[in-house]
This record gives sequence, structure tokens and C-alpha cells, in this order.
Amino acid sequence: MNLNFYLDKVEKEISNLGLPEKPDHLYTPLNYFLNLGGKRLRPVLTLISTELGGEPFQTSMNAALAIELFHNFTLIHDDIMDEAPLRRGLPTVHEKWNENVAILSGDVLLVKAYQLLANQEKEHFSDLIWLFNKTAVEVCEGQQLDMDFESQENVTINEYIEMIRLKTSVLLGCALEFGFIVSNQSKENRDKIYSFGVNLGIAFQIQDDLLDLFGDHEKVGKQIGGDVKSNKKTLLYLIAEKKAKSNYNEELQSLKNMADLDLRVQKTKEFYLKIGVLEEAKKYQEKYYQEALNTLNTIEISNSKQSFLEVVGFLFNREH
Amino acid sequence: MNLNFYLDKVEKEISNLGLPEKPDHLYTPLNYFLNLGGKRLRPVLTLISTELGGEPFQTSMNAALAIELFHNFTLIHDDIMDEAPLRRGLPTVHEKWNENVAILSGDVLLVKAYQLLANQEKEHFSDLIWLFNKTAVEVCEGQQLDMDFESQENVTINEYIEMIRLKTSVLLGCALEFGFIVSNQSKENRDKIYSFGVNLGIAFQIQDDLLDLFGDHEKVGKQIGGDVKSNKKTLLYLIAEKKAKSNYNEELQSLKNMADLDLRVQKTKEFYLKIGVLEEAKKYQEKYYQEALNTLNTIEISNSKQSFLEVVGFLFNREH
Repeated sequence: MNLNFYLDKVEKEISNLGLPEKPDHLYTPLNYFLNLGGKRLRPVLTLISTELGGEPFQTSMNAALAIELFHNFTLIHDDIMDEAPLRRGLPTVHEKWNENVAILSGDVLLVKAYQLLANQEKEHFSDLIWLFNKTAVEVCEGQQLDMDFESQENVTINEYIEMIRLKTSVLLGCALEFGFIVSNQSKENRDKIYSFGVNLGIAFQIQDDLLDLFGDHEKVGKQIGGDVKSNKKTLLYLIAEKKAKSNYNEELQSLKNMADLDLRVQKTKEFYLKIGVLEEAKKYQEKYYQEALNTLNTIEISNSKQSFLEVVGFLFNREH
Repeated sequence: MNLNFYLDKVEKEISNLGLPEKPDHLYTPLNYFLNLGGKRLRPVLTLISTELGGEPFQTSMNAALAIELFHNFTLIHDDIMDEAPLRRGLPTVHEKWNENVAILSGDVLLVKAYQLLANQEKEHFSDLIWLFNKTAVEVCEGQQLDMDFESQENVTINEYIEMIRLKTSVLLGCALEFGFIVSNQSKENRDKIYSFGVNLGIAFQIQDDLLDLFGDHEKVGKQIGGDVKSNKKTLLYLIAEKKAKSNYNEELQSLKNMADLDLRVQKTKEFYLKIGVLEEAKKYQEKYYQEALNTLNTIEISNSKQSFLEVVGFLFNREH
């Protein structure tokens, strides 16, 4: 099975969710947002891990959709908090309607996620909801930390990695473990596939940080250096700050205050290369990526991991 | 057992919820809001209906707390949407912190409600969550209708009652049915206690509308005529609008535009008495109240309903 096979299945299910029509202001924004064409990374992870676990992918479809709806709920609310005007090139819900509509339709989407999860058979339900609840709390905590960091003077690299673990990576771990819960895998294997997902998630979030500044503009599909322009505390910045402490602190501060934003991006890039920021960030990325693969290798399971890994590879390369 | 007995139990559980301390901006607002001293109407309903159903009230404590947390989640988010500065005489979460804090801490509170619900024994869990999900969706729909009505030109009395059924009454039905689920009552009895709660909820929401204008200022504990001052489409207003169509339309319109707000309240009161609005609103209230009691009477159960009804009476009288 290739990636498109699973993507088609997920898209079809999402367009057949059958949300009510009324009240119009509650459900129209949800239909709009769910069909903006997300990457469907998370539900596909659930489906392929179900197959790796030895059950047909359809067995976990409701759980997979629950994860996707939860993810979209977080996006709708995060977009309000970040005052983001666009999502996937189109107006966000609070922009197209208003904040109240975005708050309330986000709320109902979270409940809908629980409704889908409750459609899974009783046998696995308590394991699924326990993990889902834990993950949902962590994602909220991660978003709060991310917002806190904006005004927090000193953020350590460890704090940053903990933030991205909570905000984005645990949901990938949850998506994968869902497949192993539904396919009745041992607690040990469940823990391992979860850990694989979390470490992979951290590696790819770091890659996202790298690509913001060092990516191929055309390939990344967004402006280069957005994080630098907004002085966001990404891993690159935190490494630079740590390295600059002794010798280059003045240079770093003057870069942050540079009024010409395009020049700031160009000069920051040169500076990061000069003091070895890119190199060190890549080491972090590699560390989490290797940790993910090592854990996957220790999973004892009769099915081949080959096709699973192929789809995972496609999923994440498509991300950028 | 009297009301205070159950209230004490609920308060104690709420103060022992053991929310984490960090991130500070996520959990401090929740601790603040949960301890503003709500009426705890809903969790007490769950506990006493559990006893009516023949089980010790402790059996449903987690479900009762889930309802209370859910209710507080809706209040935190509704306060943002309504731009309300105060709740129970103290600053709302978005006022004391900011909107982002209120959105995110509301979100995590909803998840915490599901966590508490998942603590109930497996045996009843799928029934509980099915009802909880359905109710949560309806409460969101009710809030959306309430906001829609502000700008909607024609609102019928039936539409208004459907709105209050969704926004406030179904959660009372849910709270009561939780007790009957946990005490293993028949589907028929469950439906009846639910219906009792919904009709009682509508009756008391109508009473709230009445008290806004005709209540005893001291007893109600808030300003008289707030709904009139903001030209809110309450049941009283909708009855007046219907009655005024033939003869008094001009008088009603001029009241709505009266600049002196205290005078507007006084004149509206006189006008409503003159054309029989109060009388008709009381008929609606009585209708739903009687319907609630009739349904309760048909519940066949070995326990006496006497003490249950006493506590219900105290709960609702205390509301005003």
C-alpha cells in the first residue's frame, strides 16, 4: 500500500463525517476548516501502525479520525491565540467569521473527536481514551509553554525541546499507539511505538526550525526566515544564544534589532553558519531521529516494518 | 441527608482535584475559577439521583465532578464571547489574565472533565460518555443559537425555548441521568429522569427571565432589568412582541429606544403588566414545571422520592 491509498481513505471519511447543517455558524466553519486540505499525517500514522500491529487499517478508522479532528481543534484555537490570518493559504476561522465563532466551533470539534473515539469497540475504549486525555492535556500545556516563552527571558534548550515534545510530538506518539492498542499489541510494544513517534516528532520539528532559515524557499513553500523576522525563540536561536554568550553576544543582539528584515535574515544566516549553529542543530535532529529508529528496531513483531517505514518516510518528507 | 451534606462533599472533592502547578498560566486560572464558589447545582443532582436509584452517592462522584468541570469550561468560554467582566462578583478569567489564557485553560478544563468521567468503572463508561458527548454538543449548539438571536430579527417563542433547552437544560437532564446510569436503572427510568431534568431546567430558566424584571432586587442579588437595558430577547420580550403586534407595537418600539435606562425598566415593567406578559410567562413556567413533576411521578422505583424532591427544591430556590 502506498501513502496515497491511506490519504484517499482518510479524505473520504472526512468528507463523509456528516456534520449537521444547523446552527449554521457552528458547523459551516468546521466543514470549511476540515476541508482546507491538511496533510492528514496523524490519521495515516494510526492506520499504518494498526496494519503493522496485524489488524486491517479500517479497524482504527474512528480513532484515526478522532486524532485528526483533535488536531484541527487545536489549530482553530491556536490561530486565534497567534492572531494568524491565514492557514494553508486561506483565511483562518476567526478571520473569515469572528473570534466567538472560532472559539465555539473549536470547542464542538473537540467534543466531536471524543464522539468518534467512542465509536471504537468497547474492548479498547478505556485504553484509547486514557491515552487521548493524557495527550490532549499535554498538547494544551505545550501551547501554554510556547506562549510563555515569547515573554520569558531565559529559555533553555531542554525547556524548548520539552515544549515541542508536548505541543506537537506526543500527538504523533498517541496516533501511532492508537494503532497498537487496536491491534492488541503488548504494553511494551505500545510504549515503544509511542516513543518512536515522540522522538520522530521532535526530530521533524527541529527540521522545521532548520528549514525556516536554511530551507529551499521554493520547496518549503513559505517565506524564508519568518522565525528570524519575528525573533522567535527557536532551537536555532537558543543554540546561537548559548554559543554567543562568551564572544558574539553583541553581534547577536544587533542582529535582533536590525530594522531591515530581509537583511536581518541574510545576516543571521551567515552568523549562524559562522558560529556553528546549523551544525549543532543538525546534531540534535540526528540524535532524536536515531533514537526513534533504535526504538523501532527493538519492537518484536511478526509483520515486516519495511512498508510501514516507507509510508512514514513519505509522510514526513512531504511535510516540507 | 440535607443539601449542605452534598454540597460539602462536592466542595471538598473540588478543592482536592489536585491540578498540576505548571504551566502556571494554564492551571492557576482554573484553580481560581473553580473556587469562585459556584452553586454546584449539577454535581449535587448527579449524587442525589444516584441515591434515588439505590446506590451510595459516592459511586457517581467522578461523573458528578465531570459535569461540574464541563459547566465551568462553558462559563469560561461564554464569558469571553459575552465580554463579561465579572462572574460571581469577581473578575472573569479573560479579564484577570487575558483571552488566550481563558481559551486555553477552558480547553484543558474540558479535557479534565473527560478524565474524571473516565475514572468511573468500565461497566457504565460507554453509556456515560455517549450521553456526555451528546449533551456537550447540544450545549455548544445552544450557545451558538443564543449568540445568533442577538442579530436575528424574528425569534419565535418555540425557537427561544429550544435554545434554552440546549444551552442550559440538557445538562441538568444529563446530570440526573448520570445518577441513574451508575445505579443501573432501566432505560425507561433513565429517559424519565432525563426528561424531568430538562423540563425543570426550562421552568427555572423562565423563572430567571421573570426575576430579572419582577424579582426582589435584594433577593436576586443583581440589578433589576439587566435584560431590558440590553434589549435582550428573553421570553418576556418575545411574549410582549407577539402580544403587541396588533395594538401596542409602537409603544413597545419606543420603550426599546428609551435612552433613560432606569426609566425604560420601570416603564417596560408597567407595560408588560398591562398587556399580560407576566401572566403568560408564568403559564409557560408552570407548564414545564408540571410536565417535570408528572414525569417524575411515573418513575417506578422502590426508594422514596421525598428526600430527593426536597433537595431539588432547595437547590433551585437557592438559585435565585
